[in-house]
Amino acid sequence: MTDAPLPFGAVRPGETTVETPESFDAELWFLGRIRTPWTEPRDCPKGGDRETGPECRIELDPRWAPLLEGVAEKQRLLVLYWMHRARRDLATQRRRREGPVRGTFALRSPMRPNPIAASEVALLRVEGATLVVRGLDCVDGTPVLDLKPA
Amino acid sequence: MTDAPLPFGAVRPGETTVETPESFDAELWFLGRIRTPWTEPRDCPKGGDRETGPECRIELDPRWAPLLEGVAEKQRLLVLYWMHRARRDLATQRRRREGPVRGTFALRSPMRPNPIAASEVALLRVEGATLVVRGLDCVDGTPVLDLKPA
Repeated sequence: MTDAPLPFGAVRPGETTVETPESFDAELWFLGRIRTPWTEPRDCPKGGDRETGPECRIELDPRWAPLLEGVAEKQRLLVLYWMHRARRDLATQRRRREGPVRGTFALRSPMRPNPIAASEVALLRVEGATLVVRGLDCVDGTPVLDLKPA
Repeated sequence: MTDAPLPFGAVRPGETTVETPESFDAELWFLGRIRTPWTEPRDCPKGGDRETGPECRIELDPRWAPLLEGVAEKQRLLVLYWMHRARRDLATQRRRREGPVRGTFALRSPMRPNPIAASEVALLRVEGATLVVRGLDCVDGTPVLDLKPA
């Protein structure tokens, strides 16, 4: 065994999987994409920083612009996004090679049955259908699912 | 115009809708159902109370039980659930008949393009694949999507 990092999504020693259902129950629209400085999952920070993190852009499809009425007055938003590169069948996981194995629901890992992330961000400004925020930690190109007042 | 409440999901005067996309982008599994005392949306409180609210049950499909390893040690969980009775095309909304019209993303309304709710709850105990919690405000039978440490 080498010290090279495992590829994103590989099952690590000690991790377990679950048999997933044969059909899905509901469907999502991607409302736009999140633009961040990180192109690979291994580059992302663990947790965003609303004060010192870099500015990130949430670029909505213009179709959804009318839903932003009144959002510019908010200082904090809850952003829900889809961790589109995550495997969905991990029952127990290890966050570090030598760390303990824990159940998926006891972790904030991106690998989960419905890979939806929730991040509270600082809203800096709204530019048309784009929001400029601070506090995200996801990979560039991540699909956005929802925005709510925090 | 009468004072009778509009049916859940009706478009109120002044509200606007958006043309939704023709196809979806991702799919979800319902991991189980939430059991609460409220059978209709109009009966639900606005916001759950983690100290004085009633005990509610999150009944997971037994398939997902292995993902709960280590969860019983947590005191607070973030629960994501699917507001399955919500319409998804409202651009601006009015929360009360005489209230202001605001953009959907400036509101925590259940009516949104991807009707995913996020509630932080107090975990009381885990009984097999069921979690007993306090702090939910959703209708009985609501599908659960995810559980994370808060």
